[in-house]
Amino acid sequence: MSLKQEIQSLAERLTCGDPRALARAITLVENRVSESSELLKALFPRTGRAHVIGLTGAPGAGKSTLVDQLAREYRKEEKTVGIIAVDPTSPYSGGAILGDRIRMGSHFADPGIYIRSMATRGSLGGLARTTADVASVLDAAGRDIILIETVGVGQDEIDIVRLAEVTVVILVPGMGDDVQTIKAGIMEIADVFVINKSDREGAERVEREIRAMQSLDPREDNWTPPIVKTVATAGEGIAELAGTIASYQEFVAKSGLARRKRIENWRERLLEMLRDAVMQRVLQEQVGEGTLAAYAAEIAEHRRDPYSLVEEIVSGVKEKMDTLR
Amino acid sequence: MSLKQEIQSLAERLTCGDPRALARAITLVENRVSESSELLKALFPRTGRAHVIGLTGAPGAGKSTLVDQLAREYRKEEKTVGIIAVDPTSPYSGGAILGDRIRMGSHFADPGIYIRSMATRGSLGGLARTTADVASVLDAAGRDIILIETVGVGQDEIDIVRLAEVTVVILVPGMGDDVQTIKAGIMEIADVFVINKSDREGAERVEREIRAMQSLDPREDNWTPPIVKTVATAGEGIAELAGTIASYQEFVAKSGLARRKRIENWRERLLEMLRDAVMQRVLQEQVGEGTLAAYAAEIAEHRRDPYSLVEEIVSGVKEKMDTLR
Repeated sequence: MSLKQEIQSLAERLTCGDPRALARAITLVENRVSESSELLKALFPRTGRAHVIGLTGAPGAGKSTLVDQLAREYRKEEKTVGIIAVDPTSPYSGGAILGDRIRMGSHFADPGIYIRSMATRGSLGGLARTTADVASVLDAAGRDIILIETVGVGQDEIDIVRLAEVTVVILVPGMGDDVQTIKAGIMEIADVFVINKSDREGAERVEREIRAMQSLDPREDNWTPPIVKTVATAGEGIAELAGTIASYQEFVAKSGLARRKRIENWRERLLEMLRDAVMQRVLQEQVGEGTLAAYAAEIAEHRRDPYSLVEEIVSGVKEKMDTLR
Repeated sequence: MSLKQEIQSLAERLTCGDPRALARAITLVENRVSESSELLKALFPRTGRAHVIGLTGAPGAGKSTLVDQLAREYRKEEKTVGIIAVDPTSPYSGGAILGDRIRMGSHFADPGIYIRSMATRGSLGGLARTTADVASVLDAAGRDIILIETVGVGQDEIDIVRLAEVTVVILVPGMGDDVQTIKAGIMEIADVFVINKSDREGAERVEREIRAMQSLDPREDNWTPPIVKTVATAGEGIAELAGTIASYQEFVAKSGLARRKRIENWRERLLEMLRDAVMQRVLQEQVGEGTLAAYAAEIAEHRRDPYSLVEEIVSGVKEKMDTLR
């Protein structure tokens, strides 16, 4: 069987709901092996149907529990769910990997919920792109709802949840300002706020702070992100959260924002794909690994200035292209 | 005065220690206006003298206080200090901006300490590069020591501290595992550990955990990162920290690692500079903003698959270049 046939066969089995094909496809895409681009091409016509919901919040906000409960809620409506849990916290500090194994176990009986945990593994950039590609695979596999869950502490995480149709920001009362650390810009991207562990003292204070922020800085689309109070461990407020998410989806569908948002997302994804592809080409054809190391050594020894060097390399490409006009 | 002359004059005033020239130069570099590349070229021959120390740790670990105290310690040795504080936490949760103004005030009387606070402003990537460029400006301005301080929660922050000669990771006892959230990979890049607020209960436990991690995974260069206990608010352990940093600097200088590390850092910086420059070129010459938006719309409407499109664009460059060989 040729590579192309193999990819085609994998794509077909995946579309028919074969869980092993799904797992294999995600692994291919996650590791960005060269076949993954062929696979994503084959799957593309089958994507665009799933609803993608991004959830983010401070460490310790109870995101996993909330996401699990929300998945169960969608299962009651007979919808199939894919969960992508992106966790950049270290095993040293968080025990994320063990935690996810336990989670997988609790849903193991229900093939309608598929959880994929993604660690960053210290990789440089590209995480938002990989997450988006994994979401496309789940979409092609026929999942109705895709929940993307991240800790809202870095730029990577913002980029990831921005890919979703709906962004849910999870806060929690009773953590000092010092500790409830989320990245600047996270509050601004919320379409829906959740105050989880809302039976704790301080829930009203968090709500007041959100309202104060909203009154200072209203959104251009006239949507005021609703605040849903939950106690995820007890399943409280989960149905209301699902309802609130649905009402935002309805809002964007009606206002024509959904299409605009989809285009904006593809613009971002396309830029990142181009950046990767162009850079790979430059490294292959203009500046090989050896040349790069030699340049770096010359710069480190102050025998060459890096700013002029970059201009020279880039204008090398430019001149060649100009000649052809 | 021509632009070139103006840049040259700015570079000279900066080298002579004019604080307004320094502030203006940093602003130029931070905003990446087109002149900034000319300025960095002019300054490059005057760089390479400063010692760059990166400090990172969990939110709430007392980084700012520790960095301020360390700066005072270096001042006792008659060294001039530049501090770059990169803070991605939201004003909503952290009050970072206000905090930095207070800090600036406390050093205001001493021109030997210059603090520059950098917010991420939701910009996509590039923060590590900008920080490195700002450090080069401070270096050219004759600062002996440059302290770069970040919250160790995202990939951006790892990339930033990796640019330093010495990386200090700051931990703090008594925070639950849930909360002492630092990015995977942060523990691994530490050259020196600090346990700040070490008068709190649990300092020994944190120390044991670091030791356990070190015995499992020793470094290739045979350096075992020392652990320094501090109480930054009381100035305790600060002199010892400065001494420990100096002993690591001696270690890398003797072992020839310093040169290798400098080359590796320039390799990374060069890659990022190339990525930016090449991408800018592609956007200017091949895919303008309008074309990009049109492509994104076609993809969103499923009239075009993005994976083939990227291949076509990139191989367009390739073919043109091939013809010239």
